[in-house]
Amino acid sequence: MKFTQIDGGVLVAEDFVAAGVACGVKVEGSDLMMLHSLRPATAAATITTNRFRAAPTYVTERHIADGSARTVVTNSGNANAATGTQGLASAERMAELAAELTGVPVEETLVCSTGRIGVQLPMDCIEVGIRNAADSLSRDADEEAARAIMTTDTVPKRCAVEFDAGGERIHLGGMTKGAGMICPNMATMLCFICTDLAIDPEPMRIALREAVGLSFNCISVDGDMSTNDTVILLANGAAGGNRIESPASPGFEAFQAALTFVTQDLAQKIARDGEGSSKFVTVHVTGAKTYEDAHSVARAVTNYTLVKTAAWGGDFNWGRTAAAVGASGVDLDPAKVEIAIGGITAFSAGEAVQYDLQKAAKVATADELEIAIDLGAGSESATCWTCDMTPQFVELNA
Amino acid sequence: MKFTQIDGGVLVAEDFVAAGVACGVKVEGSDLMMLHSLRPATAAATITTNRFRAAPTYVTERHIADGSARTVVTNSGNANAATGTQGLASAERMAELAAELTGVPVEETLVCSTGRIGVQLPMDCIEVGIRNAADSLSRDADEEAARAIMTTDTVPKRCAVEFDAGGERIHLGGMTKGAGMICPNMATMLCFICTDLAIDPEPMRIALREAVGLSFNCISVDGDMSTNDTVILLANGAAGGNRIESPASPGFEAFQAALTFVTQDLAQKIARDGEGSSKFVTVHVTGAKTYEDAHSVARAVTNYTLVKTAAWGGDFNWGRTAAAVGASGVDLDPAKVEIAIGGITAFSAGEAVQYDLQKAAKVATADELEIAIDLGAGSESATCWTCDMTPQFVELNA
Repeated sequence: MKFTQIDGGVLVAEDFVAAGVACGVKVEGSDLMMLHSLRPATAAATITTNRFRAAPTYVTERHIADGSARTVVTNSGNANAATGTQGLASAERMAELAAELTGVPVEETLVCSTGRIGVQLPMDCIEVGIRNAADSLSRDADEEAARAIMTTDTVPKRCAVEFDAGGERIHLGGMTKGAGMICPNMATMLCFICTDLAIDPEPMRIALREAVGLSFNCISVDGDMSTNDTVILLANGAAGGNRIESPASPGFEAFQAALTFVTQDLAQKIARDGEGSSKFVTVHVTGAKTYEDAHSVARAVTNYTLVKTAAWGGDFNWGRTAAAVGASGVDLDPAKVEIAIGGITAFSAGEAVQYDLQKAAKVATADELEIAIDLGAGSESATCWTCDMTPQFVELNA
Repeated sequence: MKFTQIDGGVLVAEDFVAAGVACGVKVEGSDLMMLHSLRPATAAATITTNRFRAAPTYVTERHIADGSARTVVTNSGNANAATGTQGLASAERMAELAAELTGVPVEETLVCSTGRIGVQLPMDCIEVGIRNAADSLSRDADEEAARAIMTTDTVPKRCAVEFDAGGERIHLGGMTKGAGMICPNMATMLCFICTDLAIDPEPMRIALREAVGLSFNCISVDGDMSTNDTVILLANGAAGGNRIESPASPGFEAFQAALTFVTQDLAQKIARDGEGSSKFVTVHVTGAKTYEDAHSVARAVTNYTLVKTAAWGGDFNWGRTAAAVGASGVDLDPAKVEIAIGGITAFSAGEAVQYDLQKAAKVATADELEIAIDLGAGSESATCWTCDMTPQFVELNA
């Protein structure tokens, strides 16, 4: 292990401050988050490819293009999506005001929103919120910040690690909010990660793309790509030490491992907190020809509605897993596929395997379900995570 | 209109006989269906592309390759899927016995199964059922046949038309069973269509591919492609008249129109009878650059879980439709997209449109919901159908 898990979230990294305040966009609870680096920082982001992207994603994309940013401003309760030119003006105004109050150029400021689609932002509330947040920026607001981005989440979600790179002890921490949608037109997964590592934008982008591919792109709550999904990574070099200039630099590997761990932990926390869910499901695919094949199969199984309803029902249902594997679009030979649920092999050599019904019932009704699929075609593997689908999910989303 | 809808199903076509009997695969109700042409018939089929295809689909594929078939034997209650070499032997035995009893070569016999995955067929029951069905073949068993293929369907599903081709009055009718899955490991959509038209295999395949693309490939109940999905079309020329030898032959167009109508009607009957569903949803996409774009968008919306749960909840939720359109993978400009629900425009020119809340509530709570999406990019269109997702659906599938 190249890193050590520690308590906290974004503010484990030196010279970052944050705030979470209530400004009235949501009926109750805090709904405005600000995150700021006390010194210049490099920045990278991954942004939703949904064609109905929200206004703030355009502002963030433009401001992060040069690889640097110091301030992030985010509201919850309103997604500022499908809001046309007025929505874009609101997102730009959020950036301007946050930039002014934190003393950075507007291009150094990133904007996110999450919540209801198709309603204009109440800018009077938002402006008051941004002013209050700027006034409250502190080193102690780690959890408050994580709370201020929540929508349907039942708990704030944070994760942090320490590792050595460039001759120094580096800190890296993040917070996220869930992908599930609940009230009419709610949207979005957001994630913010801060580190005091010194690193150039290009290796940062490479590391973030890799980590997101192995984490947020591996979870499925409702199978739907949202209008606002954004992951932002800021690195301010406050820990000192040698700067990472490329993936070949010493320390890059440790950074990559730490970043992947934190994003995977946060992604799993989202799946565990899926709307109305009662069970955490891990789908592990091995024996694939390529990583893409492995990921496609794992993703197909976690997105298969009938696998998710069976998980809720506590049914030891390998048949639906087989149907999902077969429908994944991956070229495979069913005669070589092996399917095990909770360690009990249920399908092998093209047909059902006899198994102990009592053990199977125990496995199927546990709080965590592990589905293992070996494709018998190669040596690549992938893991995806999801939650069960419950009648509560449908009622929450009605 | 080139055709007239008439009562009945497969047996509106001359010189076809059928039977539906109970043989004990299902706990109750009839579960073995036989369909037979009293004279040589050309045949075409579309078969699931799921890699975990059931054993009977391999037998059917092999026997239909030469473009002719006279007997179809089908059981419900057991899918004969994921059953290995023994399952294949069972499917072959079903074909052999049905061939022997109806006096045709085994290559003239097609086999389908639908029901539970991963359990071997009880061949003693099946053999008795095939014998009884062969003994009961008649011109009067149209509805009994449609009942014998049902699994979770609540009603038998039939449709028939008459049209003129080759100088004669032609009859074409079909029966289908649903795509929803319910009991542990249940699977499959099946459809059988008979006509007394004289037609060669090649134009028949072309017409069937077109019709299935515009019907069964446009419905979504649970979004999942099953292991046994099969559509079979038999044509025995009993009506006399000129033979259709190519899509350029006189009468082909009328045949295509009739076939598309019948398959669309049957597909819609499946969506209306979706498991635990309470509402029929039509998604009509216009203004697309290509048909593929239009179909992809319509399909993305009908497969979007949160659109289906909102439909159940009676929520006028255009935001989720927008998110689904954006996630469809189709290249489009949100500023040109228009979204209307039940005739009420909700999104236009990149932003929400004010609408009458009372009218919207009325539209959203009706038994049928129509979502219209114009992409503003061209002149192609496509329509898909689905049902709402209800807590009952989740409970049925647990």
